[in-house]
Amino acid sequence: MTEINKDINFLQETLPFWCALIEGEKRLLLAKISRKTFESGESIHQGGSDCTGLWVVKTGQLRTFILSESGKEITLFRLFERDVCILSSSCIMRNITFEVQVEAEKFSEAYLIPTSVYKRLSDSNAAVRDFAADMIASRLSDVMWVMEQVVFMSLDKRLANFLLEQCIIEDKDVLTITHENIAKNLGTAREVITRMLKYFQNEEMVLLSRGTIIIIDKRKLSALFDN
Amino acid sequence: MTEINKDINFLQETLPFWCALIEGEKRLLLAKISRKTFESGESIHQGGSDCTGLWVVKTGQLRTFILSESGKEITLFRLFERDVCILSSSCIMRNITFEVQVEAEKFSEAYLIPTSVYKRLSDSNAAVRDFAADMIASRLSDVMWVMEQVVFMSLDKRLANFLLEQCIIEDKDVLTITHENIAKNLGTAREVITRMLKYFQNEEMVLLSRGTIIIIDKRKLSALFDN
Repeated sequence: MTEINKDINFLQETLPFWCALIEGEKRLLLAKISRKTFESGESIHQGGSDCTGLWVVKTGQLRTFILSESGKEITLFRLFERDVCILSSSCIMRNITFEVQVEAEKFSEAYLIPTSVYKRLSDSNAAVRDFAADMIASRLSDVMWVMEQVVFMSLDKRLANFLLEQCIIEDKDVLTITHENIAKNLGTAREVITRMLKYFQNEEMVLLSRGTIIIIDKRKLSALFDN
Repeated sequence: MTEINKDINFLQETLPFWCALIEGEKRLLLAKISRKTFESGESIHQGGSDCTGLWVVKTGQLRTFILSESGKEITLFRLFERDVCILSSSCIMRNITFEVQVEAEKFSEAYLIPTSVYKRLSDSNAAVRDFAADMIASRLSDVMWVMEQVVFMSLDKRLANFLLEQCIIEDKDVLTITHENIAKNLGTAREVITRMLKYFQNEEMVLLSRGTIIIIDKRKLSALFDN
């Protein structure tokens, strides 16, 4: 299959509005779309002034987060293969008044639909607007979930939940992640995470060694989270 | 003006999609819409299983909040005259997976567009869907604002901000609100609020007396919030 046919195939399978586009719209999209790769840790989108367009993840893993003036972070949601990052074109969306950051957590490859193209498609095609509305509703649900965690759940449960999630995402029980990095994800300080992890170690749920956290008792961690 | 003409006038001015409705859709809406009053403190919407429809606030003030299993609350946003409460029909919206509560904070009057009617309009009219998308984006922005406050801002700033906001909403400097109620709004415990208010009193920013909080130094409160 040629590269362009692969692109068409991928977009067709990934963008729910693809089949509602007329021929001219499809041609416009294919002519203007580009593909870019990101190293792990590389920034993809920085706040509202940065209005590149719609990113469609081909491979890898992106993290969307908010950043305080003092550098504190909290993760809102992650994007995996075939996920669409709509907030990086939020400048053309009415009523979006907040700023998010997006960075690659692994080596990632993504298609970019430039803002100007996305705006043209959105203006002319109701299916594109319906897709955007679904995406925003889905992101609102993600953010509400994080909010409920932050407001209602104690940090031990949030940390247990985070570690178990990472095991699923990474598909292994030995996590190579720094305490600093976990703190950023959960919007707290490194010292707080280190203290909690040591408590988990004392309780024989995890084993800490230089640069890694080994999950040794998932059932006990889950129980902490469930209660 | 007759009652029905008043209703038409109000809806015309409030619903941005009104002029995009065809005659049959307008007739359907007017035939099915109802008006209801709520006492202060009365519940209007309770979570996702409760799918009454779209509320359009005529007069008064509604509060939207989330509620934990243990009864902890945090306010997401308020609705005033001419605001539309779209999350009370979230059952028909794709990708909305969270539950919110809505209650009247003052005596309020609201129009109800039943879910079945709203769904029919939304299915047949793209302007109604665009309106819903704008609303959801706007609510996402509200929620992100609260999230940034909760995660990044210390409680003294959040409390100062809350008190100043209440002065604007109530249009007076003597607030009749319980510490319990403030705690619910900010997602914390009553004792924490009482302690912080006493600190504010010592700093001569507020004066506490039975059942009221008198704001005596707005500039000092603002300064706390700005820094």
